[in-house]
Amino acid sequence: MSNAKPKTAITPTRADNYQEWYQQVVRAADLAETSDVKGCMVIKPWGYALWENIQRVLDGMFKDTGHVNAYFPLFIPVSFLEKEAAHVEGFAKECAVVTHHRLEQREIGGQKKLVPGGELEEPLVVRPTSETIIGASFAKWVQSYRDLPLLINQWANVVRWEMRTRLFLRTAEFLWQEGHTAHATSKEAVDETMKMLAVYAEFAESWMAMPVIQGEKTAGERFPGAVQTYCIEAMMQDRKALQAGTSHFLGQNFAKASNIQFSDENNARVHAWTTSWGVSTRLVGGMIMTHADDDGMVCPPKLAPSHAVILPITRKPEDRARVLEYCAKLRAELRGVMFAGSAVRVEIDDRDINGGEKKWGWIKKGVPLILEVGPRDIDADSVFMGRRDQIGQKSTGVKRSELVATIANVLQSIQDALFAKAVAYRDEHTRVIDSKDEFYAFFADPPKKDPNDPTPIHAGFALAHFNGDPKLEAQIKDDLKVTVRCIPLDDNALAAARGLASLDKGRQSMKHDLFTPGTCPFTGQPSKQRVIWAKSY
Amino acid sequence: MSNAKPKTAITPTRADNYQEWYQQVVRAADLAETSDVKGCMVIKPWGYALWENIQRVLDGMFKDTGHVNAYFPLFIPVSFLEKEAAHVEGFAKECAVVTHHRLEQREIGGQKKLVPGGELEEPLVVRPTSETIIGASFAKWVQSYRDLPLLINQWANVVRWEMRTRLFLRTAEFLWQEGHTAHATSKEAVDETMKMLAVYAEFAESWMAMPVIQGEKTAGERFPGAVQTYCIEAMMQDRKALQAGTSHFLGQNFAKASNIQFSDENNARVHAWTTSWGVSTRLVGGMIMTHADDDGMVCPPKLAPSHAVILPITRKPEDRARVLEYCAKLRAELRGVMFAGSAVRVEIDDRDINGGEKKWGWIKKGVPLILEVGPRDIDADSVFMGRRDQIGQKSTGVKRSELVATIANVLQSIQDALFAKAVAYRDEHTRVIDSKDEFYAFFADPPKKDPNDPTPIHAGFALAHFNGDPKLEAQIKDDLKVTVRCIPLDDNALAAARGLASLDKGRQSMKHDLFTPGTCPFTGQPSKQRVIWAKSY
Repeated sequence: MSNAKPKTAITPTRADNYQEWYQQVVRAADLAETSDVKGCMVIKPWGYALWENIQRVLDGMFKDTGHVNAYFPLFIPVSFLEKEAAHVEGFAKECAVVTHHRLEQREIGGQKKLVPGGELEEPLVVRPTSETIIGASFAKWVQSYRDLPLLINQWANVVRWEMRTRLFLRTAEFLWQEGHTAHATSKEAVDETMKMLAVYAEFAESWMAMPVIQGEKTAGERFPGAVQTYCIEAMMQDRKALQAGTSHFLGQNFAKASNIQFSDENNARVHAWTTSWGVSTRLVGGMIMTHADDDGMVCPPKLAPSHAVILPITRKPEDRARVLEYCAKLRAELRGVMFAGSAVRVEIDDRDINGGEKKWGWIKKGVPLILEVGPRDIDADSVFMGRRDQIGQKSTGVKRSELVATIANVLQSIQDALFAKAVAYRDEHTRVIDSKDEFYAFFADPPKKDPNDPTPIHAGFALAHFNGDPKLEAQIKDDLKVTVRCIPLDDNALAAARGLASLDKGRQSMKHDLFTPGTCPFTGQPSKQRVIWAKSY
Repeated sequence: MSNAKPKTAITPTRADNYQEWYQQVVRAADLAETSDVKGCMVIKPWGYALWENIQRVLDGMFKDTGHVNAYFPLFIPVSFLEKEAAHVEGFAKECAVVTHHRLEQREIGGQKKLVPGGELEEPLVVRPTSETIIGASFAKWVQSYRDLPLLINQWANVVRWEMRTRLFLRTAEFLWQEGHTAHATSKEAVDETMKMLAVYAEFAESWMAMPVIQGEKTAGERFPGAVQTYCIEAMMQDRKALQAGTSHFLGQNFAKASNIQFSDENNARVHAWTTSWGVSTRLVGGMIMTHADDDGMVCPPKLAPSHAVILPITRKPEDRARVLEYCAKLRAELRGVMFAGSAVRVEIDDRDINGGEKKWGWIKKGVPLILEVGPRDIDADSVFMGRRDQIGQKSTGVKRSELVATIANVLQSIQDALFAKAVAYRDEHTRVIDSKDEFYAFFADPPKKDPNDPTPIHAGFALAHFNGDPKLEAQIKDDLKVTVRCIPLDDNALAAARGLASLDKGRQSMKHDLFTPGTCPFTGQPSKQRVIWAKSY
């Protein structure tokens, strides 16, 4: 088989046309595809396996923090949405509306056609999020302070009708989890909001190898109906920001809208304090945009559908049985090793196809380790091992027993290398900016040679002071398509949740001073801290 | 605390009013509730945990048989449904139709109202099942015989607009898995159909402790568009049959409708052969109706959300710390024991509520073991253990070390007892019938004393010969609301799938001779075997 490396396995490269590169990675790695239903994607097995691993790990983290799963209706009566004014304002423009409950055969212009029949008295929307429908249940479940806290999570599909979609990052239907909790006091609800933000940060950094900044959103970027919205923000390889997860303190807004009331210890009826928090299949897009390269997907080992694939090399038919037997034994040995809480996931690819094509197929899928075994390797009791994160380097021979003994360490070192690389990339493209001119120059698109040129790679993150004025923020958005991605949380603000193993490695690695007060470069007014400005998904 | 047993914890009893008893069990065990959205249920945490356990085990069985998960759009264009004539006929009458993609504010009669806006060019239905939308992807994925078999499963929500709903058993929205596979030959597709039927039977019997009969449906009960539909059928405690899972051989019907074609080894273009198979949250209803009693839910241990609950008994405040510490240690020890492939699931209920109420709460939830620990028990290093399946009997003291050493065996013995009890109940209410008169008498409703009396418990299963005539079947359905639940498969028919550990314990335990040819009692014509007749859900 040929190890000859084509220029790059993905055309175009990131530098040539980032958006098209993304589409091609998704296709080459067999992660997802568009469907015949506008805006809805098909998540293919390799992409879905990434999501299953995300689900498994997050579900464990939610349960470890006291949450239980439940399931609520897909449909929400329009009258429920209307209960919270900001909420309906935020979602009415983009929701799928069910108006009928059957199809009827009609003759139209001489042709038989199926048309909607059985009109509903009240239209239903397919849930874009479930605060209002879950609130109706919470109102029944919460009677006394003894019923609190109520800590619920739901794994579900949601629909937000999007005109401009991109696989995983923005689709009309997507899969997500939505946590919904109710508490007796404001403080408890705020603590919950911060705790789940920390869970998301921990997951993003330790499992996805994606550094994030934990921060608060400005009013303009808040969840419709929330009092405060917190988020984790990551930098993609086009230097745009991806909001990867959000955690909302809802105050009593939704409790009042849904009438979630309880008798407190003094027997007074009071409204509960609620939170909600969610991450979605967008995380798969974040993983691609953080780690994939010009040869395709790069899966962080802790979430990879397969940690390693064994490729039997059998040029002569008479070698085949011996090589396959050796591979099966190797697989069994490797499956006996634990990595990141699971048995090592390893498969043998013995399809009868061209060896180079087969190997490059796995490189494009981003499997962390490719293990090649031929007759001569068996004689030497060794295996050729290639690391996905070191694709340019030659595969190295390693003794079988050593491979089994060290594979967990090797996978961890890949995981660590991916995180370090992502941190370095982000920091390289993060700039501390103290003047308006520099800020505008940083974010100005370079002049296009040709109007058909793809959108260029963006500038990155600007760390600048800000007086907090929403009008100024809107002006900058108009001028540059740049927004405040978040107001980073300082160590004190994170302290409550820190016990939960929120390492906040992402921000701490940033090594910029964000929290010394200064001057807003746009207004000359005082500013408590720097915020993160960027273009975003 | 009082151990005094009320007459029964659930009112009414099964004998008094079976349907109302079912609703009360669902409520008392906190499994689910109706929602404000017609036909849609809320699955509460204890009910959802049962479903999560079902999912986990089945997902493992699907993967062990070579299937992978993927995800397809929630929405299906009406034109897709129309591709298969029988299919659209079967589902058009009961589907949620999306016609608009936003809500708009309008003044109607002086009031502001939200009304549907942005009408879609083509209406979409919320998937009632996904053959047609998955077929569109399969048509792209399958090009060559090398791409086959394609073995895909999806976990998803589906909607079939039902007017008369019952929690878990029949709801407009339900959760399910749907397997969809494509094969190069008819034989391979039939083998797959039978294999997944066997997986369902194995799951029902070994995990749910619910005996089932594997059989084929008559034409009238076939899935719309299928060539053959196979099913597992169980008897509920009102002696009606529950179709608990179906596996369909679709022939080339859907491959032709969706154009799933491939080049065979001779380079000829041929249509693939497909299958589909599914089970749903209905299984939770089946578990309730198989095992629950007049004191509430009885969870089969292998799927119970908690295997055991520890109740600390602390009458005096000064005992509390010591008792809780002992309980925590006991919990840790028990969690170290493996049962049915998982660590024993055990929790401590230290809520400050009345002890009798607390204990009865857990009985109604159906936790297999209740462990009571008080100060005197600690002194004796023993625990009071009550088995849910032996609720009338007194709890027995057991040494802590013995409890830890034997808990897995105890749980297995509860599992076995539940299965044996269900088999005995079914066989007690199954009758071999050889005359039309006896058949009609068996299924005739007893005369009601009062028109407001609830529907009586039904007769059971009749094993009768049948000449296979659809008109006769329709007549009997009209007369008695009785249908052929299935044509049981004999040992030869099951042999292909038998290697897969399909024990078919349910049928084998029946000890009736089903397969000796005889005479149809309705027509006098010859019949190859007996079939199962019953009223059904």
